[in-house]
Amino acid sequence: MRTVVGVMGAGGVLSASAEETACRLGRLIAEAGWVLLNGGRDGGVMDASARGAREAGGLVVGVLPDADTRRASPHLDVAIRTGIADGRNYVNALSSDVLVALPGRAGTLSEVCFALLAGRTVVLVGWDAGPALAEYAELGQLLRVETPEESVEAVRAALAREG
Amino acid sequence: MRTVVGVMGAGGVLSASAEETACRLGRLIAEAGWVLLNGGRDGGVMDASARGAREAGGLVVGVLPDADTRRASPHLDVAIRTGIADGRNYVNALSSDVLVALPGRAGTLSEVCFALLAGRTVVLVGWDAGPALAEYAELGQLLRVETPEESVEAVRAALAREG
Amino acid sequence: MRTVVGVMGAGGVLSASAEETACRLGRLIAEAGWVLLNGGRDGGVMDASARGAREAGGLVVGVLPDADTRRASPHLDVAIRTGIADGRNYVNALSSDVLVALPGRAGTLSEVCFALLAGRTVVLVGWDAGPALAEYAELGQLLRVETPEESVEAVRAALAREG
Amino acid sequence: MRTVVGVMGAGGVLSASAEETACRLGRLIAEAGWVLLNGGRDGGVMDASARGAREAGGLVVGVLPDADTRRASPHLDVAIRTGIADGRNYVNALSSDVLVALPGRAGTLSEVCFALLAGRTVVLVGWDAGPALAEYAELGQLLRVETPEESVEAVRAALAREG
Repeated sequence: MRTVVGVMGAGGVLSASAEETACRLGRLIAEAGWVLLNGGRDGGVMDASARGAREAGGLVVGVLPDADTRRASPHLDVAIRTGIADGRNYVNALSSDVLVALPGRAGTLSEVCFALLAGRTVVLVGWDAGPALAEYAELGQLLRVETPEESVEAVRAALAREG
Repeated sequence: MRTVVGVMGAGGVLSASAEETACRLGRLIAEAGWVLLNGGRDGGVMDASARGAREAGGLVVGVLPDADTRRASPHLDVAIRTGIADGRNYVNALSSDVLVALPGRAGTLSEVCFALLAGRTVVLVGWDAGPALAEYAELGQLLRVETPEESVEAVRAALAREG
Repeated sequence: MRTVVGVMGAGGVLSASAEETACRLGRLIAEAGWVLLNGGRDGGVMDASARGAREAGGLVVGVLPDADTRRASPHLDVAIRTGIADGRNYVNALSSDVLVALPGRAGTLSEVCFALLAGRTVVLVGWDAGPALAEYAELGQLLRVETPEESVEAVRAALAREG
Repeated sequence: MRTVVGVMGAGGVLSASAEETACRLGRLIAEAGWVLLNGGRDGGVMDASARGAREAGGLVVGVLPDADTRRASPHLDVAIRTGIADGRNYVNALSSDVLVALPGRAGTLSEVCFALLAGRTVVLVGWDAGPALAEYAELGQLLRVETPEESVEAVRAALAREG
């Protein structure tokens, strides 16, 4: 079974810099040989990270909130159509061996929460998840780095640790 | 249709003071004539708030992660058995007209996130949900109070505002 | 915790006779002191059974596919807003101590399937679920009766048997 | 985006002949260039169809009821861990462009129901889904064939029709 790395983050329009970061993270994940999994929509971090991974020849799985692919990113290989709206955030978290979260808001934070509840390592890139999750940071399950490159190193270390 | 107020918070063993707070909140919700909805389990804020509401003659609906009632609080009137594990946090959030959240960690925070995404008013009692949700606080959708009594006033105001 | 009896069946426009049957079933469930649970929408068996139960003073819980109550039956006491579309059929089945199914099609049949998978007794009123479920019929877990009155007797017997 | 063909069927121990049929169906799907999607577990039609597809070099996605991969088939490429138990049957159905169902019972039938509700073509191989779904058969959305080879032809025709 292939290793799956989840990429979460803002769903809306990104700044040029955030777009570039998400795309680069996607490319790095593909280059590492991991499957990239995200929320599958045609905007924000979802679309940009999918594009980056696909351009580097990676496999991209999008877990859509929708029952169809009308709003799916064109850069997916496989569209999982859950039909359960934002409830799919739970599936995103569980289906990722490790979760990398770019800055986001309530949706992204819900995915961080579910990944932590499920025992997954979560790597935040350049943002802070707040005091309610401090305990996970102390345990080393919730990490913060500043760049996509550092997040990939953190993923690699987590995967090695978890065997 | 009756107004449903969700009560979320830590699922584990509570301090005597946190237990009393959750129980009092449950009682206040019942006295206001609202249905109390929570996660339905037999521990933490779920059990204490259910007990408080039932002792005051209120109606209590527990939305369980489980497929059965083996781990349900004995203080429920109706047990919704979702079978979708922590995915039921999404259902908890949507099914509450307003959400009151006592201190908790990842599970509680996921419910706060989903309620905000769905446009519900969320009232935090004595804790802080962190910077990722600051925008909702600025919009007045995410409030912080210090006591159950204040949270009930905030719920009342939100319900009046939303008609 | 109160006993919950699920009522499933066609969601579309009903014949006058089917409408009367669903309404009568709702009334009988309320008169037996059970909570009526159904899919919560404002049409078909959902609306008619809810109306019957409410007119008899019963408690009605609707488990909606929606994230809001715009399409809810006006005869619900409590609206569980799942937001998971037809995925809520799974929740309907698990949340019912016993399931009574009036004639329906794919949606109703999915609820029958899930209830059987979860070990619940299912009572079909005037229809047949087909050969794929024959094994459950042989085991006595899937029953067929012809009237609402008979279905209530079958529910009573199942509840007595299951303690 | 790649075409996804779902394969459903009994989860328990299979006869040698049923095992061979499921494996052959998996191989044919892979040879057609389609992604095979199934319920992901290490038994029954799930495991056999995954094995057949993998041996032919296909891509296999398993949508597990579980939150982890402990009970996953070893023949998956990607494991979607839903954590929503049998609720994942809904995701299986929606995520398949066309569904092929080998003989099964309540679980398989629930997937057939959900696929039909979502407008997908369903191809039954050697069994009958019963009178409650007769309307779908009349509309040509629910088909019956006798062999894996015929089911692949039916899938091809459905995909061509749906563009």
